[in-house]
Amino acid sequence: MSLTNASPEAVASAARSASFALATLPASARNDALQTIHDALAAARDDILAANARDLELARKAAADGSLSQALVSRLDLGKKGKWEDMLKGILDVKDLADPIGQVQMRTKLDDDLVMERVSCPIGVLLIIFEARPEVIANIASLAIKSGNAAILKGGKESTESFVAISQTISSALAATQVPNSAIQLVTTRDVIAQLLAQDRNIDLVIPRGSNDLVRYIKESTKIPVLGHADGLCSIYLTASADKNKALDAVVDSKTSYPAACNSVETLLVQDAALSTVFPGVAAALCSKGVSLRCDPPSKAAIAALSDLAVQDATPDDYDTEHLSLTIAIKTVASLDDAIAHINAHGSGHTDAILTSDPAEAERFMNEVDSAGVYWNASTRLADGMRYGFGTEVGISTNKIHARGPVGLEGLTIYKYKIRGDYQATAAYGEGEGKKPWKHEKMAL
Amino acid sequence: MSLTNASPEAVASAARSASFALATLPASARNDALQTIHDALAAARDDILAANARDLELARKAAADGSLSQALVSRLDLGKKGKWEDMLKGILDVKDLADPIGQVQMRTKLDDDLVMERVSCPIGVLLIIFEARPEVIANIASLAIKSGNAAILKGGKESTESFVAISQTISSALAATQVPNSAIQLVTTRDVIAQLLAQDRNIDLVIPRGSNDLVRYIKESTKIPVLGHADGLCSIYLTASADKNKALDAVVDSKTSYPAACNSVETLLVQDAALSTVFPGVAAALCSKGVSLRCDPPSKAAIAALSDLAVQDATPDDYDTEHLSLTIAIKTVASLDDAIAHINAHGSGHTDAILTSDPAEAERFMNEVDSAGVYWNASTRLADGMRYGFGTEVGISTNKIHARGPVGLEGLTIYKYKIRGDYQATAAYGEGEGKKPWKHEKMAL
Repeated sequence: MSLTNASPEAVASAARSASFALATLPASARNDALQTIHDALAAARDDILAANARDLELARKAAADGSLSQALVSRLDLGKKGKWEDMLKGILDVKDLADPIGQVQMRTKLDDDLVMERVSCPIGVLLIIFEARPEVIANIASLAIKSGNAAILKGGKESTESFVAISQTISSALAATQVPNSAIQLVTTRDVIAQLLAQDRNIDLVIPRGSNDLVRYIKESTKIPVLGHADGLCSIYLTASADKNKALDAVVDSKTSYPAACNSVETLLVQDAALSTVFPGVAAALCSKGVSLRCDPPSKAAIAALSDLAVQDATPDDYDTEHLSLTIAIKTVASLDDAIAHINAHGSGHTDAILTSDPAEAERFMNEVDSAGVYWNASTRLADGMRYGFGTEVGISTNKIHARGPVGLEGLTIYKYKIRGDYQATAAYGEGEGKKPWKHEKMAL
Repeated sequence: MSLTNASPEAVASAARSASFALATLPASARNDALQTIHDALAAARDDILAANARDLELARKAAADGSLSQALVSRLDLGKKGKWEDMLKGILDVKDLADPIGQVQMRTKLDDDLVMERVSCPIGVLLIIFEARPEVIANIASLAIKSGNAAILKGGKESTESFVAISQTISSALAATQVPNSAIQLVTTRDVIAQLLAQDRNIDLVIPRGSNDLVRYIKESTKIPVLGHADGLCSIYLTASADKNKALDAVVDSKTSYPAACNSVETLLVQDAALSTVFPGVAAALCSKGVSLRCDPPSKAAIAALSDLAVQDATPDDYDTEHLSLTIAIKTVASLDDAIAHINAHGSGHTDAILTSDPAEAERFMNEVDSAGVYWNASTRLADGMRYGFGTEVGISTNKIHARGPVGLEGLTIYKYKIRGDYQATAAYGEGEGKKPWKHEKMAL
């Protein structure tokens, strides 16, 4: 690992070269490197937290004069209860995961003495661009090393001191391991994101970790594939047959357990037949948790009698807005078809749920809604790599290729085909006179 | 299916809408549509071949005055022996493949009454851009329908008459099936490729079928992921321990069985220790098949005694050129490391082979060469979906994400996560006091 202010071209080219060496390290060497990073960070705790305190002081001043959001200050704080320990534990958790590299996914006998294997391997070079969370450096460096990918890390200016302190620690630690020096590079030069995004010959995948605006900017600015999501506009379709009591749990959890998360619900679609039955209880439960409702006329009328609720009129924009706060847009729909059409037109393909007791309706919803996660009687907040049991999360993708939904280590791998033969000429195979047929026998993995 | 001269925006938007309906058709409906297309094309044989003859006449004139290549004329000819029958058989072959949609790839019990499944589904909307081969329309329409993807097809002007005749036949045939009309659209408007490539909101994947220049132009001109390869610069590393007789078979097959194919070998790297042992026989065998050798000084010297060989001096450009003809560049290297470094620097990540009797050397080569196909004692011409046993081929990808190497139907799919629950709130789960742990039990598929 190295801290560098070299040119983006030089950084990307060095990463490509290092990726070839890193890709061939055995799992034991990659795991040893993770243990070494962990131990070095644990030993450097005081220095890193002191650097983080300096970042925090500047950030608090910026927040006081309004130039930085309070949320960003909070994300910056490595000293917050449990955060440091979680960062260290995360490194060991990644170390303990099964090796994602070298897995044989397919083995076919093409002919005698001619066997094809599909084997998982690293993608190559990752570019990670993140904002205020300094712990992301340790997290992403771990994921990259575990999966045998070289990584270029570019952090936000708010976390510069923390970033440099963590980086120096990791850098010294890795010097004693088999991981090549340029396999993990931390770019400290300012304002080079656009230039890094132009290195499509040497960078294979960009992973942004930050605000919607950051992700949107990156997706607009590069030809390199981007793994992630700009928006998380999740919806729940509440039908008349939903369990009246349990529905409260799922909707309230989806909205209030972490309103700023991408998997929180933003739009509640209510079947018209549910307006006078299931919906009022759900609306009251949301309001009791401090949620503001943005209603269309029918849903507003349905709860008019509950005069103490925080209800506003919805505007068309509300159905296209990721509020990321205790606000929910509510819209009445006549049918399952209307609910599906609304979600496919206004959603972000992240996670959407239906609450119903009708299995046929639920299956149609899950088949026809074109989103990474489609749930039946479940909270949208389940969309998370840890909750899915992946052990770690690279991010949540709304892409339609490669990896979709919460992405574990598997999303940082691709495969290559290995063939071991006996010099056979392909011209001898095929259909027709004098040609040998292919055997194409599946073999055990 | 419809022939359209609507705006690219309208075409892409209609495709997106149709993709939702197509994605939910059962396999039986998709297979019925393929049978219907097959039967209709078989019935329209004479009309289509007459249209193709008109394209051919124009193309032959253009070739005669030098404005079109003879190779393109040859690719245009649907009447060529076996081509029409192969096209029809291809449709039924695709029909008979296993359904790629609805496959459960993962099933996890998150908790009691809370089960997650990962299920394969179509990607959405494909844009297929192709040049002279009119049979590609039938091929790609079949693959798209089988995999539940909507497709927009844009053909080259040389095959316009054939294209329209095939399209009209398929279009009428599909009208009697459950496949929505806009699921397969054939764009007949000229010069709209750039505008189609800008429809990244509604098009999920571009598949170019044509020359290297076409693919390179498309990769440079769109933010939509492109499945394919611009270049096929394949290398073989010939070591001194290779079997002296069998090596001829593998190298000659790699170079001469179809010189214009992307998986033909373009560079032969010769270990210096092999120059006087294995190499002369290989060189003589290549020359006897009409291959021109472009040699560096050591390899030229090694075969100087064989005075009747067609040998020229290699220029540096030769090692970066996909000759696509009976020409091969030859370069002497001192070691396995040098061979690997040359391939990773000059190759196109398509397919590369080592010929050796040393298993350790072979395994290092296969692990360290960063290509979609890495072969030991095998012909590079094996890189092909049919030869791999995939039953069909969407194309060969040198991408580092999603699909790499020969791509079968699987490459036209992605997945979604379905969760079936009982309204559980996620806030109740996790570590710490009063929290329920996740079960994360793998379930049978």
